[in-house]
Amino acid sequence: MSLLVVGSVAFDAIESPYGKVDRIIGGAATYFAVASSFFSHVNLVGIVGDDFSAEDESIFHRRKIDIVGLERAPGKCFFWAGKYSENLNERVTLCTELNVFADFNPKLPENFRASKHVFLANIAPDLQRSVLKQVKGTPKLVALDTMNYWIERTPAELRETLKHVDVLMINDAETRQLSSEHNLLRAARHIFKLGPSTLVVKRGEYGAMMVDKNGVFCVPAFPLEEPHDPTGAGDSFAGGFMGYLAGCGQSSDAALRRAMVYGSVLGSFAVEEFGPERLRRLKLREIHARARHFSKLTQFKL
Amino acid sequence: MSLLVVGSVAFDAIESPYGKVDRIIGGAATYFAVASSFFSHVNLVGIVGDDFSAEDESIFHRRKIDIVGLERAPGKCFFWAGKYSENLNERVTLCTELNVFADFNPKLPENFRASKHVFLANIAPDLQRSVLKQVKGTPKLVALDTMNYWIERTPAELRETLKHVDVLMINDAETRQLSSEHNLLRAARHIFKLGPSTLVVKRGEYGAMMVDKNGVFCVPAFPLEEPHDPTGAGDSFAGGFMGYLAGCGQSSDAALRRAMVYGSVLGSFAVEEFGPERLRRLKLREIHARARHFSKLTQFKL
Repeated sequence: MSLLVVGSVAFDAIESPYGKVDRIIGGAATYFAVASSFFSHVNLVGIVGDDFSAEDESIFHRRKIDIVGLERAPGKCFFWAGKYSENLNERVTLCTELNVFADFNPKLPENFRASKHVFLANIAPDLQRSVLKQVKGTPKLVALDTMNYWIERTPAELRETLKHVDVLMINDAETRQLSSEHNLLRAARHIFKLGPSTLVVKRGEYGAMMVDKNGVFCVPAFPLEEPHDPTGAGDSFAGGFMGYLAGCGQSSDAALRRAMVYGSVLGSFAVEEFGPERLRRLKLREIHARARHFSKLTQFKL
Repeated sequence: MSLLVVGSVAFDAIESPYGKVDRIIGGAATYFAVASSFFSHVNLVGIVGDDFSAEDESIFHRRKIDIVGLERAPGKCFFWAGKYSENLNERVTLCTELNVFADFNPKLPENFRASKHVFLANIAPDLQRSVLKQVKGTPKLVALDTMNYWIERTPAELRETLKHVDVLMINDAETRQLSSEHNLLRAARHIFKLGPSTLVVKRGEYGAMMVDKNGVFCVPAFPLEEPHDPTGAGDSFAGGFMGYLAGCGQSSDAALRRAMVYGSVLGSFAVEEFGPERLRRLKLREIHARARHFSKLTQFKL
């Protein structure tokens, strides 16, 4: 089944204790599309400027990614510059230039409208909703990411959009901010009233937690000795999660648990190197091997 | 097999957003002994003042806890007062009175010296070592807890003691402080050089992580809607962990994983109510039921 993603395709400047890059391809839709394309055909909707070269575009080539929905506009790509702290747990945004992204008004190509799985990456909630309106019929699964900016600035728009969402995938700070609840179980109950029936909380080095009617499922982060760059980890997680579900076409509890594991696998690879470099040369067999490693990391017999 | 614990038996004053108690029995050895006694016979070594009444002592009665090693001294029990933040993640120590604990010099009763499993709760490293010297032969498993105070003030004593320890059980901040490594895998490698062959990192609401020659095993914290008081959670975890291992007499990877789960189970019950109240009325069947719940929380099939 086809998986639609709408979000940013960007250039990032990244500094971490492990190095520095001045310009590397990034953006939520980029990480998501590459990560999910291991499992599913992906329809990408985004916008780039005229500084986006054929070489930049090559990250989407020879993968199951359709970029007919990647709009080209005069001007420059979205640009983000950030610096990570010594332990990679904190980051400072040094610069955000919206550029062509400022006037982004996502339009779904005709052949994207039948997508059954939809991932609305972190963009303005009204744009996220406009995308959903363009999808034909009722998608099988809609997942949404958002951030403190939209929770604070456009709470009404976000609430309206959440009514049409199945899976909310945000980090723990965002979960607490959106629900005004510190406890994640109480936060989940609050969020279920807003629309989503599943909450996936991304907890960085502590892994991820899924709460739904079946209860709670936790998966740890893969232990790495030298993570280099956390940029894109959450979007790669979302890509592994949604890609797996779109690829297998299931939404049982067992499938959702596997999706959490594949999300964690993709997120863990993403942080191994700067930008999406590790994902670019990742092989499906490496993904499956790490998924088996997650079993070893978590399984026990009473 | 018999399990020896040496540590504090104390009175605590605790304030959390869920309430306030002015005087409740506490101390690492108390939590540890009650938690571990569900699985194993426990030999307790500690010291109390003449304010420790028969009623206070009753927490150890009708359990497999031998308190012949609980010394009585003129004066008052160790006393700690603390206040937890709104989200229970931070606490301020309002008062620490060592009282009779200041001159504690643990002496093992003759029948305790054959203990095969030993837990050295958080006391001065030289006292921890003096306990080990009193144990006959080589114990099967020695575990140790410590804290920032000893890591900073008596680093040489701590290093000397760690040479004789199999399992180091500390929290993530202590792990990082002791090893001068933020990354827990690198921290574990550093700690293995000091003596222990197993590192168990207690991560509060994020669960616990074990690193040894077999690799890494992670267990989440049990999701609770209303934890009331984190006091004693780490010692209850240690009690579940060591109690399980002493009770089954095994030390295979599979047994260590189960010990991690039972540790988490006991820790999760401990935080449900103030002080050791929940542990006091806990039943073995509740422990096993929650252990099965941990399976549901973490298990998946690829």
